Amino acid sequence: MKLKEEQVSAEYVFRGKIINVRCDKAKIFDGRIVDREVVEHPGGVGIALEDDEGRFFMVTQYRYAQEQIMLEYPAGKKEKGEDPLTTAKREIVEETGYEGRDFVYLGNMVPTPAYDTEVIELYYARTGKYIGQHLDDDESIRLSRLTLDEITEKIVKGEINDAKTMGMTFLIKEFKERNQ
Amino acid sequence: MKLKEEQVSAEYVFRGKIINVRCDKAKIFDGRIVDREVVEHPGGVGIALEDDEGRFFMVTQYRYAQEQIMLEYPAGKKEKGEDPLTTAKREIVEETGYEGRDFVYLGNMVPTPAYDTEVIELYYARTGKYIGQHLDDDESIRLSRLTLDEITEKIVKGEINDAKTMGMTFLIKEFKERNQ
Repeated sequence: MKLKEEQVSAEYVFRGKIINVRCDKAKIFDGRIVDREVVEHPGGVGIALEDDEGRFFMVTQYRYAQEQIMLEYPAGKKEKGEDPLTTAKREIVEETGYEGRDFVYLGNMVPTPAYDTEVIELYYARTGKYIGQHLDDDESIRLSRLTLDEITEKIVKGEINDAKTMGMTFLIKEFKERNQ
Repeated sequence: MKLKEEQVSAEYVFRGKIINVRCDKAKIFDGRIVDREVVEHPGGVGIALEDDEGRFFMVTQYRYAQEQIMLEYPAGKKEKGEDPLTTAKREIVEETGYEGRDFVYLGNMVPTPAYDTEVIELYYARTGKYIGQHLDDDESIRLSRLTLDEITEKIVKGEINDAKTMGMTFLIKEFKERNQ
């Protein structure tokens, strides 16, 4: 059975600063034309930055759409056309004040496959030189550092429920096990 | 420093079948008013269904917004006001043909905290009675069954990049280790 769906038409119903929204018509497996709502997002990066004591930088911030304070690895949105490693290197300084070194690409993650184009590129890095934090002017965050075991406990207890933080912790543990 | 942001105003710019989109004004930590784009989604469930041979049901499907075929645990969107366990029990029959039994709530996951209200409730269940698949009429999927080790390998190799599948695999492995 054919799985692929073909775009028949696309209409932008919203163009915003962060996202655009399209209402498409798509031809599905049996030839019928159906509606597909699509959120367009430029994509982003997540960075797990480990210090010399084996602790990872974590960001506490208010997430407006979720109406809650969440604990996550540092992350950021790509500028248009930007190489994700460039985004990762910029964002990690902006949020933690540290340069990253020895960047390892862990793979990517699709947070919301059903209706969103967003892809997050995931990196693991070690702390380099401290050059100072410089947040976006509408950002307010608290920084902390946790070990992988502490992060794992918080995920299991439900105190961390951010998808990228869950997925990245899984990938880092696998990476460390395989590269000991 | 204050983290919480207060809603000042909200304007719906799109009302669709799956999502609504709002442009809000919000008061942030320093008292300024800023724009916040919010995608409203009713939320959903993900279900890891294990058969008697220790294999998990996986769904292969075309994800229109991602323009790719993806391999994921069965999942579905909540009906308005629906209890998530009810959604999970319905979706698992619809997609696999099997009733679930011994449902374990693994916690929830926020796929896209920066701009989306979606929350996914995650369950682990064992296969019960086979009563037959009945998909939504615009759904076309392929079913397979993989062990946790096989799923882990596919995540590490980047062949699985769906956020809920990554996070759920992490939680199921932790659950099994702690409940042996």
